Amino acid sequence: MKKAFLISIGNELLCGRTVDTNAAWVSGRLFAAGIETQSVQMVADEVADIVEAFGQAQRKADILLVTGGLGPTDDDLTRQALAEFLGVPLVYRPELAETIEAFFTRRDFPMPLRNRAQAYIPDGAEPIDNPCGTAPGVLYEKGEKLIALMPGVPDEMKAMFEESVLPRIRKGQAGPVIRSANLRCFGAGESALVEMLGDRMGRGRNPLVNCTVSEGIITLQLIAVGDTASTAECLLAEHRGQIEGILGPLVFGAGEETLQDVVGRVLVEKKKTLAVAESCTGGLVAKMLTDVPGATGFFRCGWVTYSNQAKITQLGVSETLIQEYGAVSEPVAEAMAEGATHKSGADCAIAITGIAGPEGGTEQKPVGLVYISVRAGNICQVHRFLFANAGRAAIRRRAAQTALNLLRLQLTI
Amino acid sequence: MKKAFLISIGNELLCGRTVDTNAAWVSGRLFAAGIETQSVQMVADEVADIVEAFGQAQRKADILLVTGGLGPTDDDLTRQALAEFLGVPLVYRPELAETIEAFFTRRDFPMPLRNRAQAYIPDGAEPIDNPCGTAPGVLYEKGEKLIALMPGVPDEMKAMFEESVLPRIRKGQAGPVIRSANLRCFGAGESALVEMLGDRMGRGRNPLVNCTVSEGIITLQLIAVGDTASTAECLLAEHRGQIEGILGPLVFGAGEETLQDVVGRVLVEKKKTLAVAESCTGGLVAKMLTDVPGATGFFRCGWVTYSNQAKITQLGVSETLIQEYGAVSEPVAEAMAEGATHKSGADCAIAITGIAGPEGGTEQKPVGLVYISVRAGNICQVHRFLFANAGRAAIRRRAAQTALNLLRLQLTI
Repeated sequence: MKKAFLISIGNELLCGRTVDTNAAWVSGRLFAAGIETQSVQMVADEVADIVEAFGQAQRKADILLVTGGLGPTDDDLTRQALAEFLGVPLVYRPELAETIEAFFTRRDFPMPLRNRAQAYIPDGAEPIDNPCGTAPGVLYEKGEKLIALMPGVPDEMKAMFEESVLPRIRKGQAGPVIRSANLRCFGAGESALVEMLGDRMGRGRNPLVNCTVSEGIITLQLIAVGDTASTAECLLAEHRGQIEGILGPLVFGAGEETLQDVVGRVLVEKKKTLAVAESCTGGLVAKMLTDVPGATGFFRCGWVTYSNQAKITQLGVSETLIQEYGAVSEPVAEAMAEGATHKSGADCAIAITGIAGPEGGTEQKPVGLVYISVRAGNICQVHRFLFANAGRAAIRRRAAQTALNLLRLQLTI
Repeated sequence: MKKAFLISIGNELLCGRTVDTNAAWVSGRLFAAGIETQSVQMVADEVADIVEAFGQAQRKADILLVTGGLGPTDDDLTRQALAEFLGVPLVYRPELAETIEAFFTRRDFPMPLRNRAQAYIPDGAEPIDNPCGTAPGVLYEKGEKLIALMPGVPDEMKAMFEESVLPRIRKGQAGPVIRSANLRCFGAGESALVEMLGDRMGRGRNPLVNCTVSEGIITLQLIAVGDTASTAECLLAEHRGQIEGILGPLVFGAGEETLQDVVGRVLVEKKKTLAVAESCTGGLVAKMLTDVPGATGFFRCGWVTYSNQAKITQLGVSETLIQEYGAVSEPVAEAMAEGATHKSGADCAIAITGIAGPEGGTEQKPVGLVYISVRAGNICQVHRFLFANAGRAAIRRRAAQTALNLLRLQLTI
């Protein structure tokens, strides 16, 4: 198995300003490609420190992946450090300067002079195209050893890794074939899910099942190893099927799919439209749904009726209902969903009312209490949730995700 | 200035399962205490690798802080690695076994036999009390050098660091005082901003000015060093004032403030309320504004009028206006803001209409074209933007941030 060494560069990583999420992402992608990350090192923006880290990495691994320090400012020193490490000069590549300049031209911006620094790369290295930013990457290959410098901005790094770096690493890779797939799950905690899968989660299994949780979404990554592509693919398909069978409706999607991707897809398939009325989530559900490209195809209208007045005037919720039951109540959630369907003419509606905190909770209606109403066709459900032990942002996120998941279940089961 | 080296131990950190948040937290706490983190290294659960990392750390720093690998299972090897590194045996400490057993007794659980392993620590080291879990920490001090082993579970690590490790580090600390402050900026690119600040961004200056970009927001961190607290504070205040003077309205806040925090604060101060009408941002502006705790105090109502129909029926935008100019146009943005103010009775309004892509662009109205209308009192401004070279999510985010920033400027200048 090939080994990789990752270096994350930047003072901001060493004074608590920024959590390095790049290393975990890259090591996860390498892992899925059958490459072991031997170590990760975070280094300050100092040439000597970076050169030393390069030396250490080179002794320990074949693949050295570096993120950060490719910007145009004086403390971006990764290009320089690589040149020093390789004992070669930095050379000016006019074609890179042109690409960088074109990036600014497209934005109707003159290129700041300092960005010229990004057109210098170590002699003998190749530039890597950066589809999302100004900093080109740098690739250096010699024999079995490969060094890639990538930007620290996560989106730029990820695009560059997928499009240029990983294919290059794979080219030189022999040995067993690896296939992987993600199952995306929502609706149960990580430990409950792990318990349901039992032995399948054990180390050293084939396929290996890795479990990660991010923002309330659980991703099971299945990694199958086989002598040939078809052996690996069959093994993967078989176990994937079994796990889907065990987890049932907890699995909502594959790959990198989000709940809103799936809801949008199902609505388009069923030729249904959706409206959203939000109080405590304050537009989050609408935002998530319109994250989906082509949301015009299913998303009609959204209301953020944060105040009682807005619920009454915009959605037609009756004032006496609010007085009698309070704005955070089952009847008001139901009336909001009804109002949203009625006012928009959409086929389906989601309505959410709750207390996201930190203020506004009472003993009877504590922070975290949320009512979610989901209408699809003639069926209207209202669910009560208590998202306890969570802050404002987490309560809002969980309420929004839960609402999308309820609509998904109502539309598909 | 004393230097620290952090080591994070665990296979889960090297296969993308877990993002290491401990290192950033510890380095932030050290930074605030005037201790520089020289480097962070993540190492797998292998004795040889850990011992090697100890050696490297010892050569580079006085303070070596280690997290992870103190659990009771076979792959928890940090205690063993430290013993090997120091060339001493692990010794059984009966008083630790008692503490661990008491932890289980309090939870009505018999202590699993394997937890006895946690009562062994390297000869000559001291145990550190763990108020939140079973794994005792380990502290080893010799001359100027200090090594502390802490659990990987963030809550346990944090409690142990604050209660035992940091006080111990501070005991031996003399020297300069450090004060730092953030200036949060929006409205110019990183390189333009750096150019405006010129020499102030140079390395080795006092105060040092660090620049980081996250989600379009630029944070300048000023770090001043002085012999006394008041020297450091004055130096910081002076340079902060100068930089604020140079950057003018590009600086929107301090600390960790967001654009929505500032907009919310200004609205509350001025006793003004706000309504939002969004097309392409699809609820993102409303979501950001209601991220702010206490948003009830200024946020009236939001509309996500994604379809033309919704713009007409919900906001009263005239159908002929849309037919004549198109939904993405200056007059429609203005009419949306007017409708939002009118329907909600709010004092101010933001309206956004644009093409977030990836589909829907034309030569005349390309993807990235966004009209933002901001109303405050009787003044209504409409601005045209072309957010080029960006994906759907980035276009939406930039449109939302720009809208908030425009309202901030209109309210404060």
